[in-house]
Amino acid sequence: METAVALVQCPDQRGLIARISGLVLALDGNIVSADEHATAPQDGVFFMRLEFHFDPARHPRPAVEAAFADLASQLGAEWRIRYARDRMRCGILVSQQIHCLMDVLYRHAAGELPMDVAMVIGNHDTARRTAEHYGVPFHLVHATKDNRDAAQAEMLRLVRESTDFLVLARYMQILTPAFLSGYGRDVVNIHHSFLPSFKGANPYQQAWDRGVKVIGATAHFVTEDLDEGPIIEQRVERVSHRDSVETLRRKGRDLERLALADALLAYTHHRVLRHRNKTIVFE
Amino acid sequence: METAVALVQCPDQRGLIARISGLVLALDGNIVSADEHATAPQDGVFFMRLEFHFDPARHPRPAVEAAFADLASQLGAEWRIRYARDRMRCGILVSQQIHCLMDVLYRHAAGELPMDVAMVIGNHDTARRTAEHYGVPFHLVHATKDNRDAAQAEMLRLVRESTDFLVLARYMQILTPAFLSGYGRDVVNIHHSFLPSFKGANPYQQAWDRGVKVIGATAHFVTEDLDEGPIIEQRVERVSHRDSVETLRRKGRDLERLALADALLAYTHHRVLRHRNKTIVFE
Amino acid sequence: METAVALVQCPDQRGLIARISGLVLALDGNIVSADEHATAPQDGVFFMRLEFHFDPARHPRPAVEAAFADLASQLGAEWRIRYARDRMRCGILVSQQIHCLMDVLYRHAAGELPMDVAMVIGNHDTARRTAEHYGVPFHLVHATKDNRDAAQAEMLRLVRESTDFLVLARYMQILTPAFLSGYGRDVVNIHHSFLPSFKGANPYQQAWDRGVKVIGATAHFVTEDLDEGPIIEQRVERVSHRDSVETLRRKGRDLERLALADALLAYTHHRVLRHRNKTIVFE
Amino acid sequence: METAVALVQCPDQRGLIARISGLVLALDGNIVSADEHATAPQDGVFFMRLEFHFDPARHPRPAVEAAFADLASQLGAEWRIRYARDRMRCGILVSQQIHCLMDVLYRHAAGELPMDVAMVIGNHDTARRTAEHYGVPFHLVHATKDNRDAAQAEMLRLVRESTDFLVLARYMQILTPAFLSGYGRDVVNIHHSFLPSFKGANPYQQAWDRGVKVIGATAHFVTEDLDEGPIIEQRVERVSHRDSVETLRRKGRDLERLALADALLAYTHHRVLRHRNKTIVFE
Repeated sequence: METAVALVQCPDQRGLIARISGLVLALDGNIVSADEHATAPQDGVFFMRLEFHFDPARHPRPAVEAAFADLASQLGAEWRIRYARDRMRCGILVSQQIHCLMDVLYRHAAGELPMDVAMVIGNHDTARRTAEHYGVPFHLVHATKDNRDAAQAEMLRLVRESTDFLVLARYMQILTPAFLSGYGRDVVNIHHSFLPSFKGANPYQQAWDRGVKVIGATAHFVTEDLDEGPIIEQRVERVSHRDSVETLRRKGRDLERLALADALLAYTHHRVLRHRNKTIVFE
Repeated sequence: METAVALVQCPDQRGLIARISGLVLALDGNIVSADEHATAPQDGVFFMRLEFHFDPARHPRPAVEAAFADLASQLGAEWRIRYARDRMRCGILVSQQIHCLMDVLYRHAAGELPMDVAMVIGNHDTARRTAEHYGVPFHLVHATKDNRDAAQAEMLRLVRESTDFLVLARYMQILTPAFLSGYGRDVVNIHHSFLPSFKGANPYQQAWDRGVKVIGATAHFVTEDLDEGPIIEQRVERVSHRDSVETLRRKGRDLERLALADALLAYTHHRVLRHRNKTIVFE
Repeated sequence: METAVALVQCPDQRGLIARISGLVLALDGNIVSADEHATAPQDGVFFMRLEFHFDPARHPRPAVEAAFADLASQLGAEWRIRYARDRMRCGILVSQQIHCLMDVLYRHAAGELPMDVAMVIGNHDTARRTAEHYGVPFHLVHATKDNRDAAQAEMLRLVRESTDFLVLARYMQILTPAFLSGYGRDVVNIHHSFLPSFKGANPYQQAWDRGVKVIGATAHFVTEDLDEGPIIEQRVERVSHRDSVETLRRKGRDLERLALADALLAYTHHRVLRHRNKTIVFE
Repeated sequence: METAVALVQCPDQRGLIARISGLVLALDGNIVSADEHATAPQDGVFFMRLEFHFDPARHPRPAVEAAFADLASQLGAEWRIRYARDRMRCGILVSQQIHCLMDVLYRHAAGELPMDVAMVIGNHDTARRTAEHYGVPFHLVHATKDNRDAAQAEMLRLVRESTDFLVLARYMQILTPAFLSGYGRDVVNIHHSFLPSFKGANPYQQAWDRGVKVIGATAHFVTEDLDEGPIIEQRVERVSHRDSVETLRRKGRDLERLALADALLAYTHHRVLRHRNKTIVFE
């Protein structure tokens, strides 16, 4: 038996749940988890996540996929199927701060994240020892503002074939449109503020200057609009007049680790759907 | 068009979602919201909440109910249907502290809670003015340990015909097994601690004595086992060495209001299912 | 015996705590609570809050104040003393949404807030019944964009002599510089977003459009720069793709009530100090 | 210049702050941070934490200490002084789960915790690689119920001279009274529940069985009464019917890491005072 996750989104219409779940039944599948969401009671957009067991000896993957493709074309739906056996391959980009990298690698080693870590790319050598402790290949691609295009071309060569998505684990260089379109898959970033507050550089200094009483961190998909991509997860924590910029940074590191971990947990379980500039994150 | 909510729970088995959602389709209904939960990937218990629109001119309520009854008997399911038009009638019991009562009545007046408030019963007269401000009938049933049986018999007479569920909004008398079985419907209590910590009397004093750093409040269904019923919602907040028992009580009053409000919001939208001593609360 | 709170802020310098607490000792006073904060380990700004008992028969208020004035001139300090017996008089401004008003009045009636409520001013009549339920005078001053100056002149006449500070409990008109400078005392506003995100109109719609996973509310001092005044308190809560603008508003009403209540609790206990565009809030 | 932290606790009495801060002034010291707490407005117990700079060339440590000892004897106070230069030496005990160990070692390496890690002792070999990655000596002391006394005698020999306090980073053996009294210094434990709920074995299973909607973790001082020692810090997080015992464990690991980190941060900055079975934790 195999486990598959089907993600479907389409214009809302009568009978969707019956038809989609009926398709699984017709494939002799057994739904182990189902989630739905509609953006409005009527005439909105409908989203469904179905996790089901099926017997590939009776219904091989191509047959399952053909059945979904057929139904999707009737419904005007976008869809994809992921198989639990095919772990997603993750590439991690990192700069000098390694707390998010370390946290992701630890969680992966502890079995929390159903993915493979294909490589770590650093624009400094700081993260090498941590990557190697966890048995992950490390590549140094020294990127600066001056060699950005060349560096990102090299990075693209490294990740294009061997990863299914990227994580920016406090990677402090901006990815170029050329890189993003060349890669063409999801890139998850952890931003060290409670977006949309404090975009851009040094958000903890900005937060301290404004005197906020709560700080946050935001995991989001990277788009060409910096700090504007769809938000996957946010974490917040109280601060006070006692906090310096330095203690905000320390507290923020914990928020960053937790927001990124939650986002990756949801993403690798195929619980995140993108719709326009927002996300549906099934729990 | 009418809006109905169907709640179904039964042994998990293949094809449940397709069959239940197919039934709505056969009734020409339109599902506006669906939630499912299974206690285990296989062979657990399955729960489903379906909110759907249907046309009573084509399929009157009895026909809808007959269709569900028929399917339920095939599935070995418990089920019930609620109609949005039939607002549940709530009876509220209160003692001398009125913050929860006031909060529920305000939310009801603001249109947050889809229910009717049939009456307030107080064992003191403290709450009368608040009830009357919101136009709700107030009954004084002076209950003490000594006249408990007579008082609860009078209360039962008041609520039996005119309410669909009861809320104990800081009602400090224990309901007898005779009352509970005589009433036979749901009773929601707000307990002023983070259960199962600090059962029994004066939980804020207990919390202060133990020196906890977080306090809580718990909304739960009342059962004959005091403070042991299924938990619906819990709210928590940080405290510190600076807090006295009095400030714990003040902070706790906010937690009690919020936990009770969340529980009632879920309950009146038929999002709470009971299973053994636990709850499924669909969001 | 009387209870006084002294608030002192001055350039940091050696011996401040000893000198200020020594002054209380010289007045035969008994410190019941002390809090200090410095913006930097050295050469920053120093803040102190001292709550103490003293015997006015031996040291009348003018003598206490003269002693503080004398020390303050030596230290280059700003200072003020408040006496617990002199409850601050609060004026509340409100528009059509009354949840914050109702919450403040309830807390006041429950003894949580050491202040008097001098009056409620509404620019609609919506809040009259609530104010009168709590025995507070209600004044209707119908303010619109067109009669703003005249309306605010009338409001100023109402509050100038009879209040020590104002609360904007979801008052949706902008106070003019003329009003603010004419009033010359503190005005506390509750803003329905997690500032600095979503300034301006309809913040819950803005939050929904951006797809944030956490919303907030902010209590702050009003300044001539709209939504830019010193933040006193912020409250936040998780939301998800399931939330509509309407449920964000509902959740937000709770955040607004709690953030405003916390801010008023701190303010009326003289635990809030302003410094540039930030606050020190002693717990 | 040196930085010292003085912690004082004594019966509350008039003039305490003036006398203690005056002592620092007399030592030509400069207070950089002061915190006070009294358990009651009058006749309670008074606690003070003073962080100050002093010049050891003019006032050597013994002179500073003699001055405090003298004042303390007048006040009936317990007191101690810690110098920032003398980093506390920490011994960490661990069993098979290493998430807390890894987190503490990472934070230490990142400069968050002002302490030295003297050693890690494991009763299995699981943690060796992590300890060695961070350059910390690892000792295997295989402890079971059967060899408990001998094992703990060996552990005592390892830690007695070389550590100032111990951390039980998910160490699953019970420390004997002989070990605790032989060691005689602070032992900080992280307990995987929201104490006092779910004492004893397998708290996440207990929490799941009870159907709570919030779980927690508790950092506390170890005493001879298991799970009853003074609580230093607690962290909580929402859970739902969707959570299995396994996901509670996963979420709990994060709570454990955070609660332990907060407790160690406060402890190593000498911000934690013990009083009876409770703690004062200055922020």
